[in-house]
Amino acid sequence: MITQINTHDRFKDNLEWVQRLLARHDYLLEKKAELRPDTIDSVNESSLRHVTEEIQERIKHLHAADIAHILEALPYAKRMRLWDFVSSAQDGDILLEVSDSVRESLIKAMNEGELLAAVESLDTDEMADLAPDLPQNVVSGVIKNLDDEERKQLHSAMSYDDDLVGSLMDFDVLRVRADVTCEVVLRYLRLFDDLPKHTDNIFVVDDDNTLKGILPIRRLLVAQPDTLVDTTMEKNIVFFQPDNKSEEAAQAFERYDLITAPVVNSLHKLIGRLTVDAMVDVIRETSDEDRLQMAGLKEEEDLFAPIIKSFKNRWAWIAINLATAFFASSVIQQFETAIAQLVALASLMPIVAGLGGNAGNQTITMIVRSLAMGHLQFAQAYPLWRKELGVALLNGLVWGALVGLITFIMYQDTALAVLIMVAITLNFMLAATMGVFIPMIMHHFGRDPAVGSSVLITACTDSGGFFIFLGLASAFLM
Amino acid sequence: MITQINTHDRFKDNLEWVQRLLARHDYLLEKKAELRPDTIDSVNESSLRHVTEEIQERIKHLHAADIAHILEALPYAKRMRLWDFVSSAQDGDILLEVSDSVRESLIKAMNEGELLAAVESLDTDEMADLAPDLPQNVVSGVIKNLDDEERKQLHSAMSYDDDLVGSLMDFDVLRVRADVTCEVVLRYLRLFDDLPKHTDNIFVVDDDNTLKGILPIRRLLVAQPDTLVDTTMEKNIVFFQPDNKSEEAAQAFERYDLITAPVVNSLHKLIGRLTVDAMVDVIRETSDEDRLQMAGLKEEEDLFAPIIKSFKNRWAWIAINLATAFFASSVIQQFETAIAQLVALASLMPIVAGLGGNAGNQTITMIVRSLAMGHLQFAQAYPLWRKELGVALLNGLVWGALVGLITFIMYQDTALAVLIMVAITLNFMLAATMGVFIPMIMHHFGRDPAVGSSVLITACTDSGGFFIFLGLASAFLM
Repeated sequence: MITQINTHDRFKDNLEWVQRLLARHDYLLEKKAELRPDTIDSVNESSLRHVTEEIQERIKHLHAADIAHILEALPYAKRMRLWDFVSSAQDGDILLEVSDSVRESLIKAMNEGELLAAVESLDTDEMADLAPDLPQNVVSGVIKNLDDEERKQLHSAMSYDDDLVGSLMDFDVLRVRADVTCEVVLRYLRLFDDLPKHTDNIFVVDDDNTLKGILPIRRLLVAQPDTLVDTTMEKNIVFFQPDNKSEEAAQAFERYDLITAPVVNSLHKLIGRLTVDAMVDVIRETSDEDRLQMAGLKEEEDLFAPIIKSFKNRWAWIAINLATAFFASSVIQQFETAIAQLVALASLMPIVAGLGGNAGNQTITMIVRSLAMGHLQFAQAYPLWRKELGVALLNGLVWGALVGLITFIMYQDTALAVLIMVAITLNFMLAATMGVFIPMIMHHFGRDPAVGSSVLITACTDSGGFFIFLGLASAFLM
Repeated sequence: MITQINTHDRFKDNLEWVQRLLARHDYLLEKKAELRPDTIDSVNESSLRHVTEEIQERIKHLHAADIAHILEALPYAKRMRLWDFVSSAQDGDILLEVSDSVRESLIKAMNEGELLAAVESLDTDEMADLAPDLPQNVVSGVIKNLDDEERKQLHSAMSYDDDLVGSLMDFDVLRVRADVTCEVVLRYLRLFDDLPKHTDNIFVVDDDNTLKGILPIRRLLVAQPDTLVDTTMEKNIVFFQPDNKSEEAAQAFERYDLITAPVVNSLHKLIGRLTVDAMVDVIRETSDEDRLQMAGLKEEEDLFAPIIKSFKNRWAWIAINLATAFFASSVIQQFETAIAQLVALASLMPIVAGLGGNAGNQTITMIVRSLAMGHLQFAQAYPLWRKELGVALLNGLVWGALVGLITFIMYQDTALAVLIMVAITLNFMLAATMGVFIPMIMHHFGRDPAVGSSVLITACTDSGGFFIFLGLASAFLM
């Protein structure tokens, strides 16, 4: 059978039948519950059995990633119902695919035996991914059943932070020596039942397991059988160490179009490999994280999480926002006399603040992005700042003049019109300055410039905008 | 030589020597210019030659992606200086790697002959990527020099929109028939000098070029030589059609961990393939685009673009922001009498608006993300809305009460304190409602929910917040 992938429609179809069959199953269960305990409705019983079998049969033919996708889209109660139907053989792979918060809910619903069975079907590097979310006794149980080699691998993988290459490498490496012929390599490969996933390279090592080069399968396939690995292999290679940042490794995969790459320790011994699928996840997760963090969400949120969990995920940034809002409010308070004299100031001040915030967000987004891609060094801050000031001046000239004109039409007050134009220009310049320097300075001190950038810049342009506009007004209009 | 990749440091080093050597070259050129026209300073001449050679030599050893990276990080004038040193053999690959705006600046600096030479070194699918940015006469020149097969490929690739699979597929496919043995396939492969990049599959077709299955290289390598392709190949495969959305293809690559996948036409004939490196670019670009668009940037911006270009890229959203800001301002204007009576309203109103904006951005970011990942269907809007209303109520209770308390301490006014608490809660609920429905409705009507989401939600919570707070105040406090 040839499968046509139309991700979107297929997912919709899957979600549709899952919900339909679950509803049918619910209905039959209810009907059964309505019967007196001692009666058996054989028609109902057999329908129930049929629906159960249909659900199980259909799930069995889905890819783990598709089941994970469906589980994530279902509200909590239905998700748990479906999870019961999933065969234990698929449990492990699905747990790897779902998001952290959904994984937590699924693991909670499993007993120790089920968890043990699910985890033991996985590779050691995959176990290491799940381990932090598992109960301690399950982890100990898993470790007890591993052989020495696997135990070492698991410990190694678990000893690295999430954002380091060491936590992402797998141990499925094919090794050959440089002094054998390609013919020998081909014969050696034929001894395997199956090669590791994504094998596009064979790693060439010496007797000491020191990495000497890589033998691309592409070259092996076209090489004459009697040529030596040594003359066929690639010696100019990209490799990583376990303490490299995974984000930088992902960028290297992207830049050099890699499929797999070796990971070596400080003595240049081959200890594992990175594969492109793990790197794709890193790229997706990093950009996702940045987006969530810019909006003030601590982490990926389960859409149907309990209200209290969502509250906890979101409270920190609302609290920060509250603090900056009170600061902006206190700036306005200083000028309450001016506002009392000229109430128009109160309706015009959000325009000054809002335009500055918009422009500041544009600048900061661009800078954060360039920093993340490694396009920007601290030394370039000054020319960049000058350029952004230029854009701010031009913005001030255009939008400031327009707002001034509208203000004049609305209030017939030339001084107020000129004043708001000047205030808008100055706030644009403040936005440009902060937009360049906040992320550059955060980056310079090793902080992630994405986190909080939007809230920080808005705080600056709000308070700054109110201060500039109301300050100028009290100085020149009162 | 084994190359250690440390993306970040290596890039810094490269940028450092490029700038140092360019500066030295500049200095020597200036010195030469200072001489009288008829004198030759042979020491200066030879230094100049040396620096030129060193720059060229070093560039030659860099990967095209690395050179592209450096070009993007250099201010305009220096970028053009470096571009002059790049050998024409590398030009084509570099043009493929740089961002659109940088590409435009590089192409402008090349004459027709140089462009023709650069483009002709590329594959037809790569030519199609560059074609829209090239002068018409260069494109015609390129087409004239292609053979029939290549011309057909180029036309096909150019006929699809940027966001469709057809524009991303390449034509480097290896085809075998199902009725030959694995031994024959291996011998056939050995006839090539080189296999296409990222070849992890060989495509199995019949005499009519209809796709029958794929033969993973992993299986070919472990198969016994005399087994038939037909029994070894995978028949349950993921394939695409040229009019599939590239974003959905990228999600399928991510979900099923693919390296390459076949592209077939409506008659199921094999016409090309997709490779993971193109999909990685799609993932990166989509998430990038979303981020830029949320901040109101039309497209990726060259950091050192002329001020007027940056202005043009950013003006549209500032204009929209201006319109919404004036609307919010007009809301405040309706309540100027209330503000004149109680100036504290002016300093407190940004708090109500700001908190709502923050919460609304959290909700909308989450929804936009789930929609992009296909986790969310229109039917789920109602339960989701109810949940978000719950979070909004809880937020209102906690933060509203806190703001109320602080307001009471500051102004000793119980009514004002209760009123701001109620206003904040109502604005949170407005934010939740808009945060759920704006993106859901945009998505339902086939619009990209990321574009403008942040500006739209902020406009709602600003105007809404002012209206609720000032409206309640005029109703109950005046």
